[in-house]
Amino acid sequence: MTRRPVDLTQLITDRIRDIPDYPKPGVIFKDITPLLADHVAFAAVIDAVVAHYGGRAIDKVAGIEARGFIVAAPVAYQFGAGFVPIRKQGKLPSATYMQNYDLEYGSETIEVHQDAFTPGERVLIVDDVLATGGTARATADLVRRTGAEVVGLSVLMELGFLNGRDRLTDLDLHALVTV
Amino acid sequence: MTRRPVDLTQLITDRIRDIPDYPKPGVIFKDITPLLADHVAFAAVIDAVVAHYGGRAIDKVAGIEARGFIVAAPVAYQFGAGFVPIRKQGKLPSATYMQNYDLEYGSETIEVHQDAFTPGERVLIVDDVLATGGTARATADLVRRTGAEVVGLSVLMELGFLNGRDRLTDLDLHALVTV
Repeated sequence: MTRRPVDLTQLITDRIRDIPDYPKPGVIFKDITPLLADHVAFAAVIDAVVAHYGGRAIDKVAGIEARGFIVAAPVAYQFGAGFVPIRKQGKLPSATYMQNYDLEYGSETIEVHQDAFTPGERVLIVDDVLATGGTARATADLVRRTGAEVVGLSVLMELGFLNGRDRLTDLDLHALVTV
Repeated sequence: MTRRPVDLTQLITDRIRDIPDYPKPGVIFKDITPLLADHVAFAAVIDAVVAHYGGRAIDKVAGIEARGFIVAAPVAYQFGAGFVPIRKQGKLPSATYMQNYDLEYGSETIEVHQDAFTPGERVLIVDDVLATGGTARATADLVRRTGAEVVGLSVLMELGFLNGRDRLTDLDLHALVTV
């Protein structure tokens, strides 16, 4: 094991703040805002995602609303790729494809513009947290519905105990840290 | 006038899509998703913001939910700055400062974590669109309430006919394009 991954894990986990009983009693929310606010840690996160997928050709990066945008957009810039927002229902103004799914605290619908991708484009999906995997599963399905190819799914933090990974076995899933 | 700004303006305006009657009848929504999806235009936008404020010391970039994140986060990365999200009410898990304001289609409350900035930090605010200036005004006031300094406000597109600029005369406001 090289030194770099160990340092990165520490850098990230030290800057994720546990918020008890948010958004509802009994849940411990993982707050990444201290990580994003730290310029060294923020840059290290972006660099690590780019390094992991660096050998792959990526045409577009799809970011999942809203925190996913914060990691996905710099990754898109670094790859010289376009950025596509995956948004909650009603937020995209043009014609969309929709996908319903269950998530950790209820259910949700996400959308993507029908013309966001062209068939054959290679798309990296980026989000902040992988919980039950519902959002990621729905996003991958949406991207594929446009005819594009999903290169992989990158998340900053995987909540391992929720087993979201089990629903995503067809994807090249990369988590910077697993808690 | 150099050639670069002319090309950038064209690059941006050609990729902003008018959506009539969204989000309500009579409104023409400026959809920036075609611009974000174009890898050349997306990179040019980030580079232009960085170039404009390049001579200034910037500790943190504040991005305004949700589309503002998409421009603000790569700008933060390029400056080697931290990223701070300015979010709609109820989205931030820790203690916040709040600000109410009027916006183009109603009213809104935004929040920032009380510990997002330390006094004296130099903060660049980034959003996608400047409309009436309500969101930008509230954000600048929130940042200053934490004791931080607002270096400037950068927007991708200014809707000049709404005169938002008039409410922001105390800020170094930079718009990549004005329509």
